[in-house]
Amino acid sequence: MTQTKSNVNVEAQAIEAKKASKSLLVLSESEKNEALNHLADVLEREYETILQANEKDLENGKEKGFSEAFMDRLSLSKERIADFANGLREVAKLEDPTGNILSDWTLDNGLQVEKVTVPLGVIGMIYEARPNVTVDATGLALKSGNAIVLKGGSSAIHSNGAIVDVIHKGLSETKIPKEAVQFIASTERAATNELFTMKEHIDVLIPRGGGKLIQAVVENATVPVLETGVGNCHIYVDKEANVEKAINILVNAKTDRPAVCNAAETLVVHEDWLEKHSAALIDALQQHGINVHGDEKAVSVIPGAVPAGHEDWANEYLNTDIAVKTVSDLSEAIAHIETYGTKHSEAIVTENADTAHKFLSLVDAAALYHNASTRFTDGGALGFGAEIGISTQKLHARGPMGLPALTTIKFLMKGDGQIR
Amino acid sequence: MTQTKSNVNVEAQAIEAKKASKSLLVLSESEKNEALNHLADVLEREYETILQANEKDLENGKEKGFSEAFMDRLSLSKERIADFANGLREVAKLEDPTGNILSDWTLDNGLQVEKVTVPLGVIGMIYEARPNVTVDATGLALKSGNAIVLKGGSSAIHSNGAIVDVIHKGLSETKIPKEAVQFIASTERAATNELFTMKEHIDVLIPRGGGKLIQAVVENATVPVLETGVGNCHIYVDKEANVEKAINILVNAKTDRPAVCNAAETLVVHEDWLEKHSAALIDALQQHGINVHGDEKAVSVIPGAVPAGHEDWANEYLNTDIAVKTVSDLSEAIAHIETYGTKHSEAIVTENADTAHKFLSLVDAAALYHNASTRFTDGGALGFGAEIGISTQKLHARGPMGLPALTTIKFLMKGDGQIR
Repeated sequence: MTQTKSNVNVEAQAIEAKKASKSLLVLSESEKNEALNHLADVLEREYETILQANEKDLENGKEKGFSEAFMDRLSLSKERIADFANGLREVAKLEDPTGNILSDWTLDNGLQVEKVTVPLGVIGMIYEARPNVTVDATGLALKSGNAIVLKGGSSAIHSNGAIVDVIHKGLSETKIPKEAVQFIASTERAATNELFTMKEHIDVLIPRGGGKLIQAVVENATVPVLETGVGNCHIYVDKEANVEKAINILVNAKTDRPAVCNAAETLVVHEDWLEKHSAALIDALQQHGINVHGDEKAVSVIPGAVPAGHEDWANEYLNTDIAVKTVSDLSEAIAHIETYGTKHSEAIVTENADTAHKFLSLVDAAALYHNASTRFTDGGALGFGAEIGISTQKLHARGPMGLPALTTIKFLMKGDGQIR
Repeated sequence: MTQTKSNVNVEAQAIEAKKASKSLLVLSESEKNEALNHLADVLEREYETILQANEKDLENGKEKGFSEAFMDRLSLSKERIADFANGLREVAKLEDPTGNILSDWTLDNGLQVEKVTVPLGVIGMIYEARPNVTVDATGLALKSGNAIVLKGGSSAIHSNGAIVDVIHKGLSETKIPKEAVQFIASTERAATNELFTMKEHIDVLIPRGGGKLIQAVVENATVPVLETGVGNCHIYVDKEANVEKAINILVNAKTDRPAVCNAAETLVVHEDWLEKHSAALIDALQQHGINVHGDEKAVSVIPGAVPAGHEDWANEYLNTDIAVKTVSDLSEAIAHIETYGTKHSEAIVTENADTAHKFLSLVDAAALYHNASTRFTDGGALGFGAEIGISTQKLHARGPMGLPALTTIKFLMKGDGQIR
């Protein structure tokens, strides 16, 4: 890791965020909600400033020859900004995750013990192109009583900067100090790297973006990390799978939104099922323009399939390509998923309840599906409200992370002179 | 970090542990409990083997001139081994932390969602001298359905090795595969370092020991870490503190067991209180042989006090020395604790409920006390049963960690062909 200092004073900003996080601790739920609703109004009112800045990012993006999909994610409009504002209003309506007494009891000596939820403190958000993260993450952080340090991707730096300027303007008319939202206005990698080791001022880092970004944070950060998002998800079609369910689930998981993390990347299929139902499968693949990278058996059965190698099994295609691995039993399927999966979402299609039970017990992932599409691993779809990301790690939070993931606990002990 | 390979095959052992962890997933609670009770019996039966090995460690320790306290912690006896066995029997009696459905609901489309607790998988335990950790950690890991990789301190390597041999012998007569308990039989630092990056095979590292060990793990590990134990705890005596409570709490927190992490290391005292009650304080300090390192005002008031510097404020003395910092108000007290505290346990002594409320809200630590000794931050004292350590981090688990800290969750989705 390079230890070069960036041209912005990242540490000073992190210290300001930490200081502001203390002011958030004494605000009431309604004061936080009023602030969020006010921010929503100000964002809608000041949309033109944001669009002007967005124009610069779009011009730069065009010069750099970014893909159409990328440019679409980067591009803002009055309507998109109104969606951001409505997102803040929705977050304001969610239950405050702090101040919940999870349990309380009294020791024999009269000492009262309360286990209560409190904000984490300062969240460091490191993310790539999409400017909506700037608003969404700010809303979730403030609602849960946390300050936030935002480090967005360089391709959206003007848009993100303008959004944060508007947020600062809005916050200055509320009880939340504007220092609670810090924006690292730098495109330098050194600025990101400085955040990695700021344990004293930042309580958690949340990387959102591609595998490389997440890997860099996990490998270099001493600040605790909430890993999100990389999903190399599998659909295992068992020998006892219903044909219609298998094909519907596969097609939905692969093609509904191929670029998201809960999309399927590999079909693991029992050789008996493949042999029996190859016609229906081939038909569905062709109809939906799905390109197959298969093992030897899959290539011999599926017309147009190209041979798959290690890099295919490990690949998060994020398009309509799929890898197809044939297996002779459940253990082989589980072993393949264990080797190449990212512990995100894994599905089995089978009519055999025992087989399904084994799959759900033995596969190690945040979300396990029996006869359903992996696309449901999503805070909105599961009814959590807004999510800060989907955790693929096991500690603290696993799967879609809503507001409670942004809290920790304190033991509060109230006594009258108790000693041990 | 040196990348030298150790002479033991750490990776092979971690892979064996991972494999064994899968077998644990399908055991019933009673099968796990029977295994723990059987292990307890075998430990008691085979105590002589363990004592012979312990003798070697004690001889080596004597040659190396270890302190009496250290030798005492290292030394085993028939009775201590019986205590270990009873500890295992107690763990067997605790509620199984896995398989709990934390919440379940059905989506409008009929998809059933369950959020259920499951074992973490493989726990990597890195610890210093005390051989009891070998038994305690093994018991907690197995009860919660986890495999464990043990890397104890070199000074106890013979004792730990013999204990694990007995555990393996015992396990071979139970449903738990003996590979679920792996012992890294090496005194090399390289063997410890290899554990740091074994993300594929180890799900969490738990370091237990001094600050240097914990620091090394946190800085170098890419495997997620549960930080435990360093406690630079403060007692803040407010200007409105009751004299008797203040002195009892201070003396208890400092002298009851000075070497443990929930002992007090600094007295932060309001200057008005110090001025008014110096006679009582000085009397108590002298009576209990407490040596004071103080700031200018403290030194001018307390006879025999020596001047304190930065290193005193930051020091975990773990003996009967104490640092004394005088302050002129609550904010100054909180700022001092914020700068030097380790987020473990912090206490305020005051009769003013508002002041106490502010302290409990604003100080960032796992356990906050009003008018009670910090010594209660302990799984046993709080009624949790055995603990794997005391977490001083904010993610996943904070404060005393019992069995639930060794679990994660899975979302299980049961459908009938649902797609999105």
